[in-house]
Amino acid sequence: MQHVDQTYEGFQGTIVTDPARSGTRPGVLVFHSIAWRGPVEMEAAERLANLGYAAFVADTYGRAPEGPEDCREMMNALNADRSELRRRIEAALDWMRGSGVTNGAHGAIGFCFGGKCVLDLARMGHADVRGVASFHGLFDRPGWPTAQKIPASVLALHGWDDPLATPEQTFALAAELDAAGADWQILAMGGVGHAFTNPRAQDKAGGKQYDARATERAWAATAQLFSAVF
Amino acid sequence: MQHVDQTYEGFQGTIVTDPARSGTRPGVLVFHSIAWRGPVEMEAAERLANLGYAAFVADTYGRAPEGPEDCREMMNALNADRSELRRRIEAALDWMRGSGVTNGAHGAIGFCFGGKCVLDLARMGHADVRGVASFHGLFDRPGWPTAQKIPASVLALHGWDDPLATPEQTFALAAELDAAGADWQILAMGGVGHAFTNPRAQDKAGGKQYDARATERAWAATAQLFSAVF
Repeated sequence: MQHVDQTYEGFQGTIVTDPARSGTRPGVLVFHSIAWRGPVEMEAAERLANLGYAAFVADTYGRAPEGPEDCREMMNALNADRSELRRRIEAALDWMRGSGVTNGAHGAIGFCFGGKCVLDLARMGHADVRGVASFHGLFDRPGWPTAQKIPASVLALHGWDDPLATPEQTFALAAELDAAGADWQILAMGGVGHAFTNPRAQDKAGGKQYDARATERAWAATAQLFSAVF
Repeated sequence: MQHVDQTYEGFQGTIVTDPARSGTRPGVLVFHSIAWRGPVEMEAAERLANLGYAAFVADTYGRAPEGPEDCREMMNALNADRSELRRRIEAALDWMRGSGVTNGAHGAIGFCFGGKCVLDLARMGHADVRGVASFHGLFDRPGWPTAQKIPASVLALHGWDDPLATPEQTFALAAELDAAGADWQILAMGGVGHAFTNPRAQDKAGGKQYDARATERAWAATAQLFSAVF
Protein backbone atom coordinates (compact mmCIF):
# COMPACT_ATOMS: atom_id res chain seq x y z
CA MET A 1 0.00 0.00 0.00
CA GLN A 2 1.10 3.51 -0.75
CA HIS A 3 0.96 6.09 2.08
CA VAL A 4 1.38 9.77 1.26
CA ASP A 5 1.24 12.37 4.03
CA GLN A 6 -0.67 15.54 3.25
CA THR A 7 -0.99 18.85 5.01
CA TYR A 8 -4.35 20.60 4.53
CA GLU A 9 -5.61 23.75 6.23
CA GLY A 10 -3.22 23.18 9.11
CA PHE A 11 -4.18 19.52 9.56
CA GLN A 12 -2.16 16.36 8.97
CA GLY A 13 -3.67 13.73 6.69
CA THR A 14 -2.42 10.56 5.04
CA ILE A 15 -3.80 9.17 1.79
CA VAL A 16 -3.52 5.40 1.46
CA THR A 17 -4.08 3.68 -1.88
CA ASP A 18 -3.30 0.44 -3.62
CA PRO A 19 -0.77 1.35 -6.35
CA ALA A 20 -1.65 -1.82 -8.26
CA ARG A 21 -4.97 -0.23 -9.20
CA SER A 22 -5.14 2.57 -11.72
CA GLY A 23 -7.47 5.51 -12.13
CA THR A 24 -9.77 7.28 -9.74
CA ARG A 25 -11.83 5.36 -7.18
CA PRO A 26 -14.28 5.99 -4.34
CA GLY A 27 -12.72 7.86 -1.46
CA VAL A 28 -13.26 7.02 2.20
CA LEU A 29 -12.32 9.35 5.04
CA VAL A 30 -11.03 7.74 8.24
CA PHE A 31 -11.68 9.70 11.45
CA HIS A 32 -9.60 9.00 14.51
CA SER A 33 -10.52 8.11 18.07
CA ILE A 34 -9.74 10.24 21.11
CA ALA A 35 -6.14 8.99 20.84
CA TRP A 36 -5.61 10.73 17.48
CA ARG A 37 -4.26 9.03 14.35
CA GLY A 38 -2.74 5.68 15.30
CA PRO A 39 -2.42 2.03 14.32
CA VAL A 40 -6.17 1.34 14.33
CA GLU A 41 -6.79 4.14 11.84
CA MET A 42 -3.80 3.24 9.63
CA GLU A 43 -4.75 -0.43 9.53
CA ALA A 44 -8.32 0.56 8.68
CA ALA A 45 -7.05 2.69 5.81
CA GLU A 46 -5.09 -0.27 4.49
CA ARG A 47 -8.18 -2.45 4.66
CA LEU A 48 -10.10 0.15 2.69
CA ALA A 49 -7.30 0.44 0.13
CA ASN A 50 -7.39 -3.35 -0.22
CA LEU A 51 -11.09 -3.08 -0.97
CA GLY A 52 -10.24 -0.75 -3.85
CA TYR A 53 -10.87 2.63 -2.27
CA ALA A 54 -8.69 5.64 -1.60
CA ALA A 55 -8.56 6.08 2.18
CA PHE A 56 -7.73 9.43 3.74
CA VAL A 57 -6.79 9.34 7.40
CA ALA A 58 -7.99 12.73 8.59
CA ASP A 59 -7.02 14.88 11.53
CA THR A 60 -9.36 16.88 13.72
CA TYR A 61 -6.81 18.02 16.33
CA GLY A 62 -4.30 19.84 14.10
CA ARG A 63 -1.24 18.62 15.99
CA ALA A 64 0.08 15.47 17.62
CA PRO A 65 -1.20 15.27 21.20
CA GLU A 66 1.32 15.25 24.04
CA GLY A 67 -0.37 12.48 25.98
CA PRO A 68 -3.73 11.11 27.13
CA GLU A 69 -4.70 14.23 29.05
CA ASP A 70 -3.95 16.43 26.05
CA CYS A 71 -6.05 14.10 23.88
CA ARG A 72 -8.97 14.39 26.25
CA GLU A 73 -8.74 18.16 26.39
CA MET A 74 -8.65 18.50 22.60
CA MET A 75 -11.56 16.10 22.17
CA ASN A 76 -13.62 17.79 24.85
CA ALA A 77 -13.04 21.19 23.25
CA LEU A 78 -14.46 19.86 19.97
CA ASN A 79 -17.36 18.14 21.73
CA ALA A 80 -18.15 21.54 23.24
CA ASP A 81 -17.92 23.29 19.86
CA ARG A 82 -19.58 21.04 17.31
CA SER A 83 -19.55 23.83 14.70
CA GLU A 84 -15.76 23.91 14.85
CA LEU A 85 -15.74 20.10 14.65
CA ARG A 86 -17.99 20.38 11.61
CA ARG A 87 -15.54 22.78 9.98
CA ARG A 88 -12.69 20.33 10.55
CA ILE A 89 -14.67 17.39 9.19
CA GLU A 90 -15.58 19.35 6.07
CA ALA A 91 -11.95 20.40 5.60
CA ALA A 92 -11.03 16.73 5.22
CA LEU A 93 -13.91 16.13 2.81
CA ASP A 94 -12.88 19.16 0.79
CA TRP A 95 -9.32 17.93 0.57
CA MET A 96 -10.53 14.60 -0.76
CA ARG A 97 -12.88 16.27 -3.24
CA GLY A 98 -10.02 18.30 -4.66
CA SER A 99 -7.41 15.58 -4.56
CA GLY A 100 -7.97 14.19 -8.03
CA VAL A 101 -7.65 10.72 -6.51
CA THR A 102 -11.35 9.96 -6.12
CA ASN A 103 -14.14 9.47 -8.64
CA GLY A 104 -16.51 11.83 -6.83
CA ALA A 105 -18.13 9.17 -4.66
CA HIS A 106 -17.18 9.51 -1.02
CA GLY A 107 -17.74 7.81 2.30
CA ALA A 108 -16.30 7.74 5.79
CA ILE A 109 -15.54 5.52 8.72
CA GLY A 110 -14.53 6.48 12.22
CA PHE A 111 -13.71 5.04 15.62
CA CYS A 112 -15.05 6.23 18.98
CA PHE A 113 -14.94 10.06 18.72
CA GLY A 114 -14.37 9.49 14.99
CA GLY A 115 -17.66 7.56 14.92
CA LYS A 116 -19.33 10.74 16.08
CA CYS A 117 -17.50 12.61 13.31
CA VAL A 118 -18.89 10.32 10.59
CA LEU A 119 -22.43 10.63 11.95
CA ASP A 120 -22.00 14.40 11.92
CA LEU A 121 -20.74 14.14 8.34
CA ALA A 122 -23.91 12.22 7.40
CA ARG A 123 -26.00 14.82 9.25
CA MET A 124 -24.57 17.56 7.00
CA GLY A 125 -26.37 16.04 4.01
CA HIS A 126 -23.64 16.21 1.37
CA ALA A 127 -24.90 14.35 -1.71
CA ASP A 128 -21.49 12.88 -2.58
CA VAL A 129 -21.20 11.20 0.83
CA ARG A 130 -22.78 7.87 -0.03
CA GLY A 131 -22.15 5.87 3.11
CA VAL A 132 -20.63 6.13 6.58
CA ALA A 133 -19.72 3.49 9.13
CA SER A 134 -19.36 4.35 12.81
CA PHE A 135 -17.30 1.89 14.87
CA HIS A 136 -18.22 2.19 18.58
CA GLY A 137 -19.18 5.80 17.94
CA LEU A 138 -21.01 8.34 20.05
CA PHE A 139 -24.57 9.20 19.08
CA ASP A 140 -25.28 12.62 20.64
CA ARG A 141 -26.56 15.15 18.13
CA PRO A 142 -24.80 18.42 17.35
CA GLY A 143 -26.39 21.79 18.06
CA TRP A 144 -26.34 22.92 14.43
CA PRO A 145 -29.36 22.21 12.24
CA THR A 146 -28.93 18.82 10.63
CA ALA A 147 -30.05 17.95 7.09
CA GLN A 148 -33.79 17.39 6.66
CA LYS A 149 -32.88 14.46 4.42
CA ILE A 150 -29.71 12.43 5.01
CA PRO A 151 -28.62 10.93 1.67
CA ALA A 152 -25.82 8.75 3.08
CA SER A 153 -26.41 5.14 4.06
CA VAL A 154 -25.53 4.99 7.75
CA LEU A 155 -24.12 1.95 9.54
CA ALA A 156 -23.51 2.00 13.29
CA LEU A 157 -21.37 -0.86 14.60
CA HIS A 158 -22.26 -0.92 18.22
CA GLY A 159 -21.32 -2.92 21.30
CA TRP A 160 -24.49 -3.35 23.34
CA ASP A 161 -22.49 -2.95 26.58
CA ASP A 162 -20.81 0.26 25.44
CA PRO A 163 -21.10 2.62 28.42
CA LEU A 164 -20.67 5.63 26.11
CA ALA A 165 -23.70 4.82 23.95
CA THR A 166 -26.58 3.40 25.96
CA PRO A 167 -29.58 1.47 24.61
CA GLU A 168 -31.67 4.62 25.05
CA GLN A 169 -29.18 6.63 22.97
CA THR A 170 -29.25 3.87 20.36
CA PHE A 171 -33.03 4.17 20.20
CA ALA A 172 -32.67 7.93 19.82
CA LEU A 173 -30.22 7.51 16.94
CA ALA A 174 -32.69 5.21 15.16
CA ALA A 175 -35.46 7.77 15.63
CA GLU A 176 -33.23 10.60 14.41
CA LEU A 177 -32.21 8.70 11.28
CA ASP A 178 -35.81 7.65 10.62
CA ALA A 179 -36.89 11.30 10.84
CA ALA A 180 -34.19 12.22 8.28
CA GLY A 181 -35.35 9.47 5.91
CA ALA A 182 -31.96 7.81 6.04
CA ASP A 183 -31.12 4.30 4.94
CA TRP A 184 -29.63 3.03 8.18
CA GLN A 185 -28.40 -0.07 9.93
CA ILE A 186 -27.39 -0.59 13.54
CA LEU A 187 -25.46 -3.77 14.23
CA ALA A 188 -25.80 -4.34 17.96
CA MET A 189 -23.40 -6.92 19.37
CA GLY A 190 -24.02 -8.61 22.71
CA GLY A 191 -21.27 -8.82 25.30
CA VAL A 192 -19.28 -6.19 23.41
CA GLY A 193 -18.20 -2.88 24.88
CA HIS A 194 -16.56 0.31 23.72
CA ALA A 195 -13.31 0.38 21.70
CA PHE A 196 -13.77 -3.19 20.48
CA THR A 197 -11.52 -2.61 17.44
CA ASN A 198 -8.55 -1.55 19.55
CA PRO A 199 -6.17 -4.33 20.65
CA ARG A 200 -4.87 -2.03 23.39
CA ALA A 201 -8.31 -1.75 25.00
CA GLN A 202 -8.13 -4.19 27.92
CA ASP A 203 -10.60 -2.89 30.50
CA LYS A 204 -13.52 -5.30 30.46
CA ALA A 205 -14.87 -4.06 33.79
CA GLY A 206 -14.78 -0.50 32.50
CA GLY A 207 -16.65 -1.48 29.34
CA LYS A 208 -13.70 -1.02 26.96
CA GLN A 209 -12.40 -4.28 25.61
CA TYR A 210 -10.86 -5.45 22.35
CA ASP A 211 -12.96 -8.08 20.59
CA ALA A 212 -11.50 -9.67 17.47
CA ARG A 213 -14.77 -11.40 16.55
CA ALA A 214 -16.77 -8.18 16.81
CA THR A 215 -14.12 -6.38 14.77
CA GLU A 216 -14.42 -8.90 11.94
CA ARG A 217 -18.21 -8.72 12.00
CA ALA A 218 -18.07 -4.95 11.88
CA TRP A 219 -15.70 -5.01 8.93
CA ALA A 220 -17.83 -7.51 7.05
CA ALA A 221 -20.83 -5.20 7.39
CA THR A 222 -18.72 -2.21 6.37
CA ALA A 223 -17.40 -3.94 3.26
CA GLN A 224 -20.96 -4.91 2.36
CA LEU A 225 -22.12 -1.31 2.85
CA PHE A 226 -19.47 0.24 0.65
CA SER A 227 -19.78 -2.41 -2.07
CA ALA A 228 -23.49 -1.55 -2.28
CA VAL A 229 -23.27 2.26 -2.24
CA PHE A 230 -20.22 2.78 -4.45
CA MET B 1 -27.85 -28.33 -6.52
CA GLN B 2 -29.21 -31.67 -5.47
CA HIS B 3 -32.62 -31.76 -3.77
CA VAL B 4 -33.77 -34.95 -2.04
CA ASP B 5 -37.14 -35.10 -0.34
CA GLN B 6 -37.24 -36.88 3.01
CA THR B 7 -40.05 -38.01 5.23
CA TYR B 8 -39.26 -37.97 8.95
CA GLU B 9 -41.64 -38.62 11.85
CA GLY B 10 -44.58 -37.65 9.67
CA PHE B 11 -42.99 -34.44 8.41
CA GLN B 12 -41.79 -33.52 4.93
CA GLY B 13 -38.22 -32.32 4.58
CA THR B 14 -35.87 -31.63 1.70
CA ILE B 15 -32.10 -31.90 1.89
CA VAL B 16 -30.23 -29.61 -0.49
CA THR B 17 -26.51 -30.08 -1.16
CA ASP B 18 -23.90 -29.18 -3.72
CA PRO B 19 -22.97 -32.51 -5.37
CA ALA B 20 -19.68 -31.00 -6.55
CA ARG B 21 -18.44 -31.15 -2.95
CA SER B 22 -17.56 -34.44 -1.33
CA GLY B 23 -17.73 -35.63 2.26
CA THR B 24 -19.68 -34.45 5.25
CA ARG B 25 -20.18 -30.77 5.95
CA PRO B 26 -21.93 -28.49 8.44
CA GLY B 27 -25.70 -28.84 8.34
CA VAL B 28 -28.13 -25.93 8.46
CA LEU B 29 -31.84 -26.35 9.13
CA VAL B 30 -34.20 -24.00 7.29
CA PHE B 31 -37.48 -23.24 9.08
CA HIS B 32 -40.43 -21.95 7.08
CA SER B 33 -42.62 -18.90 7.48
CA ILE B 34 -46.35 -18.99 8.19
CA ALA B 35 -46.85 -19.89 4.51
CA TRP B 36 -45.06 -23.26 4.92
CA ARG B 37 -42.19 -24.44 2.71
CA GLY B 38 -42.02 -22.28 -0.40
CA PRO B 39 -39.69 -20.47 -2.80
CA VAL B 40 -38.06 -18.31 -0.10
CA GLU B 41 -37.05 -21.38 1.89
CA MET B 42 -35.88 -23.35 -1.16
CA GLU B 43 -33.83 -20.44 -2.47
CA ALA B 44 -32.30 -20.01 0.99
CA ALA B 45 -31.34 -23.68 1.04
CA GLU B 46 -29.63 -23.28 -2.32
CA ARG B 47 -27.70 -20.28 -1.01
CA LEU B 48 -26.57 -22.34 1.97
CA ALA B 49 -25.59 -25.24 -0.27
CA ASN B 50 -23.58 -22.81 -2.37
CA LEU B 51 -21.77 -21.74 0.80
CA GLY B 52 -20.76 -25.38 1.29
CA TYR B 53 -23.33 -26.52 3.82
CA ALA B 54 -26.01 -29.20 3.77
CA ALA B 55 -29.36 -27.41 4.06
CA PHE B 56 -32.42 -29.22 5.35
CA VAL B 57 -35.72 -27.49 4.68
CA ALA B 58 -37.80 -28.61 7.64
CA ASP B 59 -41.53 -28.85 8.19
CA THR B 60 -43.39 -27.94 11.35
CA TYR B 61 -46.95 -28.39 10.01
CA GLY B 62 -46.83 -32.04 8.89
CA ARG B 63 -48.90 -31.50 5.77
CA ALA B 64 -49.29 -28.99 2.95
CA PRO B 65 -51.67 -26.24 4.03
CA GLU B 66 -54.88 -25.75 2.06
CA GLY B 67 -54.64 -21.98 1.95
CA PRO B 68 -53.80 -18.88 3.98
CA GLU B 69 -56.45 -19.52 6.62
CA ASP B 70 -55.22 -23.05 7.15
CA CYS B 71 -51.66 -21.75 7.46
CA ARG B 72 -52.72 -19.29 10.13
CA GLU B 73 -54.59 -21.93 12.07
CA MET B 74 -51.66 -24.34 12.05
CA MET B 75 -49.20 -21.63 13.05
CA ASN B 76 -51.45 -20.35 15.82
CA ALA B 77 -51.85 -23.85 17.22
CA LEU B 78 -48.07 -24.16 17.49
CA ASN B 79 -47.73 -20.66 18.96
CA ALA B 80 -50.21 -21.79 21.60
CA ASP B 81 -48.28 -25.03 22.27
CA ARG B 82 -44.62 -24.19 22.26
CA SER B 83 -43.72 -27.59 23.71
CA GLU B 84 -45.22 -29.26 20.65
CA LEU B 85 -43.35 -26.77 18.46
CA ARG B 86 -40.19 -27.67 20.32
CA ARG B 87 -40.79 -31.35 19.62
CA ARG B 88 -41.16 -30.63 15.90
CA ILE B 89 -38.03 -28.47 15.80
CA GLU B 90 -36.02 -31.19 17.53
CA ALA B 91 -37.38 -33.81 15.13
CA ALA B 92 -35.75 -31.89 12.28
CA LEU B 93 -32.50 -31.56 14.20
CA ASP B 94 -32.54 -35.26 14.99
CA TRP B 95 -33.08 -36.15 11.36
CA MET B 96 -30.06 -34.07 10.41
CA ARG B 97 -27.94 -35.57 13.18
CA GLY B 98 -28.68 -39.06 11.92
CA SER B 99 -28.48 -38.30 8.24
CA GLY B 100 -24.80 -39.06 7.77
CA VAL B 101 -24.62 -35.94 5.59
CA THR B 102 -23.29 -33.54 8.20
CA ASN B 103 -20.03 -33.38 10.11
CA GLY B 104 -21.72 -32.92 13.48
CA ALA B 105 -21.74 -29.11 13.40
CA HIS B 106 -25.23 -27.72 12.97
CA GLY B 107 -27.00 -24.41 12.59
CA ALA B 108 -30.33 -23.02 11.51
CA ILE B 109 -32.01 -20.16 9.74
CA GLY B 110 -35.68 -19.29 9.60
CA PHE B 111 -38.11 -16.75 8.25
CA CYS B 112 -40.94 -15.05 10.17
CA PHE B 113 -42.49 -17.90 12.26
CA GLY B 114 -39.36 -19.87 11.31
CA GLY B 115 -37.29 -17.10 12.89
CA LYS B 116 -39.08 -17.88 16.13
CA CYS B 117 -38.27 -21.57 15.59
CA VAL B 118 -34.52 -20.91 15.31
CA LEU B 119 -34.54 -18.75 18.44
CA ASP B 120 -36.36 -21.58 20.23
CA LEU B 121 -33.74 -23.99 18.91
CA ALA B 122 -31.00 -21.79 20.39
CA ARG B 123 -32.94 -21.58 23.65
CA MET B 124 -32.83 -25.40 23.95
CA GLY B 125 -29.05 -25.22 24.44
CA HIS B 126 -27.90 -28.08 22.19
CA ALA B 127 -24.11 -27.97 22.03
CA ASP B 128 -23.94 -28.99 18.37
CA VAL B 129 -26.09 -26.02 17.31
CA ARG B 130 -23.33 -23.50 16.67
CA GLY B 131 -25.24 -20.62 15.16
CA VAL B 132 -28.75 -19.52 14.20
CA ALA B 133 -29.98 -16.65 12.04
CA SER B 134 -33.51 -15.32 12.39
CA PHE B 135 -34.82 -13.39 9.38
CA HIS B 136 -37.69 -11.06 10.46
CA GLY B 137 -38.45 -13.50 13.27
CA LEU B 138 -40.66 -13.21 16.32
CA PHE B 139 -39.01 -12.75 19.68
CA ASP B 140 -41.57 -13.92 22.27
CA ARG B 141 -40.20 -16.52 24.68
CA PRO B 142 -41.64 -20.00 25.05
CA GLY B 143 -43.17 -21.21 28.29
CA TRP B 144 -40.72 -24.08 28.76
CA PRO B 145 -37.53 -23.48 30.74
CA THR B 146 -34.83 -22.24 28.40
CA ALA B 147 -31.16 -23.13 28.67
CA GLN B 148 -29.23 -21.32 31.39
CA LYS B 149 -26.39 -20.98 28.89
CA ILE B 150 -27.08 -20.66 25.16
CA PRO B 151 -24.03 -22.02 23.28
CA ALA B 152 -25.22 -20.98 19.80
CA SER B 153 -24.20 -17.67 18.27
CA VAL B 154 -27.46 -15.86 17.60
CA LEU B 155 -28.07 -13.39 14.79
CA ALA B 156 -31.40 -11.57 14.48
CA LEU B 157 -31.94 -9.82 11.15
CA HIS B 158 -34.58 -7.31 11.99
CA GLY B 159 -36.54 -4.60 10.21
CA TRP B 160 -36.92 -1.73 12.65
CA ASP B 161 -40.44 -1.04 11.36
CA ASP B 162 -41.55 -4.68 11.77
CA PRO B 163 -44.95 -4.48 13.49
CA LEU B 164 -44.55 -8.05 14.75
CA ALA B 165 -41.34 -7.36 16.67
CA THR B 166 -41.35 -3.95 18.31
CA PRO B 167 -38.32 -2.05 19.62
CA GLU B 168 -39.38 -3.02 23.15
CA GLN B 169 -39.43 -6.70 22.17
CA THR B 170 -36.02 -6.25 20.54
CA PHE B 171 -34.70 -4.86 23.82
CA ALA B 172 -36.20 -7.82 25.64
CA LEU B 173 -34.50 -10.27 23.27
CA ALA B 174 -31.14 -8.59 23.91
CA ALA B 175 -31.70 -8.85 27.66
CA GLU B 176 -32.77 -12.49 27.41
CA LEU B 177 -29.69 -13.41 25.36
CA ASP B 178 -27.41 -11.45 27.69
CA ALA B 179 -28.85 -13.36 30.66
CA ALA B 180 -28.11 -16.64 28.86
CA GLY B 181 -24.52 -15.58 28.15
CA ALA B 182 -25.07 -15.88 24.43
CA ASP B 183 -22.89 -14.50 21.70
CA TRP B 184 -25.52 -12.43 19.89
CA GLN B 185 -25.98 -9.85 17.17
CA ILE B 186 -29.07 -7.91 16.20
CA LEU B 187 -28.88 -6.18 12.83
CA ALA B 188 -31.58 -3.52 12.94
CA MET B 189 -32.42 -2.01 9.55
CA GLY B 190 -34.20 1.33 9.24
CA GLY B 191 -37.20 1.71 6.98
CA VAL B 192 -37.51 -2.06 6.75
CA GLY B 193 -40.61 -3.99 7.82
CA HIS B 194 -41.65 -7.59 8.23
CA ALA B 195 -41.17 -10.24 5.53
CA PHE B 196 -38.40 -8.27 3.82
CA THR B 197 -36.96 -11.40 2.18
CA ASN B 198 -40.21 -12.28 0.42
CA PRO B 199 -40.71 -10.78 -3.05
CA ARG B 200 -44.45 -11.41 -2.72
CA ALA B 201 -44.67 -9.15 0.35
CA GLN B 202 -46.05 -5.89 -1.06
CA ASP B 203 -47.88 -4.21 1.79
CA LYS B 204 -45.74 -1.24 2.82
CA ALA B 205 -48.57 0.39 4.78
CA GLY B 206 -49.13 -2.85 6.68
CA GLY B 207 -45.43 -3.11 7.53
CA LYS B 208 -44.73 -6.11 5.27
CA GLN B 209 -42.62 -5.22 2.28
CA TYR B 210 -39.95 -6.95 0.21
CA ASP B 211 -36.58 -5.20 0.38
CA ALA B 212 -33.82 -6.52 -1.86
CA ARG B 213 -31.14 -4.39 -0.19
CA ALA B 214 -32.09 -5.56 3.30
CA THR B 215 -32.15 -9.15 2.05
CA GLU B 216 -28.58 -8.89 0.76
CA ARG B 217 -27.39 -7.26 3.97
CA ALA B 218 -29.03 -10.00 5.98
CA TRP B 219 -27.42 -12.71 3.89
CA ALA B 220 -23.99 -11.08 4.14
CA ALA B 221 -24.25 -11.15 7.93
CA THR B 222 -25.51 -14.74 7.86
CA ALA B 223 -22.64 -15.90 5.66
CA GLN B 224 -20.20 -14.15 7.99
CA LEU B 225 -21.82 -15.83 11.02
CA PHE B 226 -21.63 -19.34 9.64
CA SER B 227 -18.10 -18.93 8.27
CA ALA B 228 -17.02 -17.97 11.80
CA VAL B 229 -18.83 -20.67 13.80
CA PHE B 230 -18.32 -23.67 11.50
